[in-house]
Amino acid sequence: MTVASTDVTTALAYLRTNADAHLRGLDTFLRMESVSADPTHADDMRSTAQWIVDELTRIGFDHARMADTRSHPIVTADWLHAGPDRPTVLVYCHYDVQPPEPLDEWVRPPFEPRYENDIVYARGSGDDKGQLFMHLRAAEAWLRGVGRLPLNLRVIFEGDEENISEPVEEFIAAHPELVSADICIVSDSDMQDDEGTPAICYGLRGIAYWEVKVQGPFQDVHSGQYGGGVDNPANVLVKMLASLVDADGRVTVPGFYDRVIDLGEADRAAYAELPFDLDLWKRVTGVSEPMTGEAGYTLAERLSGRPTFDINGLWGGYTGEGSKTIIPGWAAAKLSCRLVPDQDPREIEEAMIEHLARIAPPTVRVEVRSLSNGAAFVTPLEHPVIRAAAEASEIAFGKAALYHRSGGSIPYVPALAAGVGVSSVMVGWASPNGNFHAPNEWMPLANYRGGMDAIVHLWELIGRLSPAQARGEGD
Amino acid sequence: MTVASTDVTTALAYLRTNADAHLRGLDTFLRMESVSADPTHADDMRSTAQWIVDELTRIGFDHARMADTRSHPIVTADWLHAGPDRPTVLVYCHYDVQPPEPLDEWVRPPFEPRYENDIVYARGSGDDKGQLFMHLRAAEAWLRGVGRLPLNLRVIFEGDEENISEPVEEFIAAHPELVSADICIVSDSDMQDDEGTPAICYGLRGIAYWEVKVQGPFQDVHSGQYGGGVDNPANVLVKMLASLVDADGRVTVPGFYDRVIDLGEADRAAYAELPFDLDLWKRVTGVSEPMTGEAGYTLAERLSGRPTFDINGLWGGYTGEGSKTIIPGWAAAKLSCRLVPDQDPREIEEAMIEHLARIAPPTVRVEVRSLSNGAAFVTPLEHPVIRAAAEASEIAFGKAALYHRSGGSIPYVPALAAGVGVSSVMVGWASPNGNFHAPNEWMPLANYRGGMDAIVHLWELIGRLSPAQARGEGD
Repeated sequence: MTVASTDVTTALAYLRTNADAHLRGLDTFLRMESVSADPTHADDMRSTAQWIVDELTRIGFDHARMADTRSHPIVTADWLHAGPDRPTVLVYCHYDVQPPEPLDEWVRPPFEPRYENDIVYARGSGDDKGQLFMHLRAAEAWLRGVGRLPLNLRVIFEGDEENISEPVEEFIAAHPELVSADICIVSDSDMQDDEGTPAICYGLRGIAYWEVKVQGPFQDVHSGQYGGGVDNPANVLVKMLASLVDADGRVTVPGFYDRVIDLGEADRAAYAELPFDLDLWKRVTGVSEPMTGEAGYTLAERLSGRPTFDINGLWGGYTGEGSKTIIPGWAAAKLSCRLVPDQDPREIEEAMIEHLARIAPPTVRVEVRSLSNGAAFVTPLEHPVIRAAAEASEIAFGKAALYHRSGGSIPYVPALAAGVGVSSVMVGWASPNGNFHAPNEWMPLANYRGGMDAIVHLWELIGRLSPAQARGEGD
Repeated sequence: MTVASTDVTTALAYLRTNADAHLRGLDTFLRMESVSADPTHADDMRSTAQWIVDELTRIGFDHARMADTRSHPIVTADWLHAGPDRPTVLVYCHYDVQPPEPLDEWVRPPFEPRYENDIVYARGSGDDKGQLFMHLRAAEAWLRGVGRLPLNLRVIFEGDEENISEPVEEFIAAHPELVSADICIVSDSDMQDDEGTPAICYGLRGIAYWEVKVQGPFQDVHSGQYGGGVDNPANVLVKMLASLVDADGRVTVPGFYDRVIDLGEADRAAYAELPFDLDLWKRVTGVSEPMTGEAGYTLAERLSGRPTFDINGLWGGYTGEGSKTIIPGWAAAKLSCRLVPDQDPREIEEAMIEHLARIAPPTVRVEVRSLSNGAAFVTPLEHPVIRAAAEASEIAFGKAALYHRSGGSIPYVPALAAGVGVSSVMVGWASPNGNFHAPNEWMPLANYRGGMDAIVHLWELIGRLSPAQARGEGD
């Protein structure tokens, strides 16, 4: 365990002294109705972004500004006075929130924070305004309490994380100089549990997503008159889709696994250490038991360390009340694969499209449309910033951190890696049961306090690394 | 070829003499807006039924009346004065028509008959009011031209054929005495082609129809968070459905083929004689080629002589624009099998439900709901009334009739067989390309004239059989 510096002690004291003022600031921030998906909140989005810019300037950041995008503004700022021998860290959070509906299920309105038993209930309290606010306060503790930061710091706070991925991707491509750094800290995740166990997320799955349409006869035809002669596009579609996963739970598209990096010993050890409450998992999902899935992998490994094939939607033919005796003219499906390193979403897309064309019978026409894709991402477990994040969290919470990979995708992370070659480490402090995207979203104030402390420590610990170490390149 | 009796000559002469008056009557009948599926036409349905009752009475039928049902009235009448040694024939037609929409695709409004090139265009001209009217006039030619019929005749004209099957099925069950006969002639079908080749339909497929729902998690869940762990009900559904037909095109439900009577030599000879214009068929359906289908059977045989499995509808998950990364909470499908003699729809239903339950993985809940079913039906090709229908048609049209089975189902036919043990022979005179159920429905007036002649001959020919022969029991 590293001994904290005098500076850290000073910064932590600043947080204690200003705790009440900070809570009032959090309350103000959570009252802003920054709902990115709802066009009627466009002005709220803009004023929220402006409020953050003002805060960054007040705290002592340089170049605090908001940049227009095709959607909502992106806020950036920097403090680059620690010198070239110190690492540069980029912090990513988002200031937009999920739509709060259904409103009548909230105990208090979503933008009127409720405080109860050391918990704050409000939309965005955990995902992700609360965490963005913690970064503002931790930076303030260094800049105003200590008078400097122990490293160079940039921030990027976007307003479309709950909406669309293009704005931040386009921003990275257009302004690489504003996101250039040795490492990125992404704070949009949760802790391991509600007992104060910190969690470091070191990987994300990628995704490739398609829509497929099988056209048979030019319109619906009578199933009596044509049944047995006209190939039914719904029958064809289910045959094609069913064949995409074999009896061992493996995707049958040729080349699908070619670039998959299998889980290493360190990965499997990290998975093995993660507690997994199967009964809780069943209650939360409402399933009687998990699927068998891909042979040779544990449930936890399959949930984030292995690729998947899922049908996300299915439609065609008659779907009303009662019976209608037709062979549908067409049937369609939305399909997606979660991907793992080093699968290339565009290669997978080509392979899928070719494979579907190959297995389609000559009686139908198959159209496949690409809907979205993004690469998987993983930061090696031995990366010094992973270690620093774990150590900072352990100091702040008094419990060793656990390491995990997420089954989901954050388009920003692979876009940043592809655009400016910057890796991300995801460390966040929301509750894993905090009703993200649901009514009565909540955040334990203990996590809020501990998280701010952890960030203060984290900057200290990363500040002791060389820029090359912070990039994971060793010395 | 049988020589026609003086009575037949008299009846045919009556048709010639009254041809213009009959055409005016047809025009009147086709102007009645007897759309069964549209509640705003309930009064039209009733007045149409009343008009038929009045016609039957005027012609000389006894007991002409309309019976109320849960939907539209059923018209019945009889003339039973030929004596107990003569057969009793029941004639079935329907006076309701399909909704005429889309109206703007009609050259003239659907209930304003248009006459052009010896063709009448109007909703119901072929399906089935034109054919019902032919039966009225042929009976009139006997009863008023000759003064008697050469057999005992009953009629049943229903008003829900294009709507629901329950009224006629319930009527048969409630009034077996009104439909008791040695044989039923169903005139609701078409000729072989537009070159005057008569067609006798001697079989219908049955049907069993289900809705199946596969429930996975209790609601849609995130495909990143749960993909690889939560069994996807859409993936499960397509696997289950895909497994229901094997590589040889055979249904895999255990016992499915147990009661299937394979096509006999006479059947296969009849199929082989039927012309089949594959290019026309492709143009009409818009498919590039027919499906491979069940091994060992020709396309024509598969279209009406073999059972099928078809997915009629498919739905579940996200079906809107773009991508949504969910594992659906459930996925559903409408399924049906066309059946052939002697498959029992209720046995097939039980077998299907059991099979689906058996192949479902333990990770999902499967619900199967029966939506409708009806038995297949076939009258042996050597049945004397089949022969009489072919001979009558050949005399009237100067061309040998062809024999076929229909791939569709007419619930009335198996209901009549099950209810009162009466077999049906289907002989009709619409055009096979006559836009049934579509705009600009049409009927060649040559078919109309020839069809009336054929009915006159048919009563003469069946009149020469014993009741037992008319029942197909030999002497």
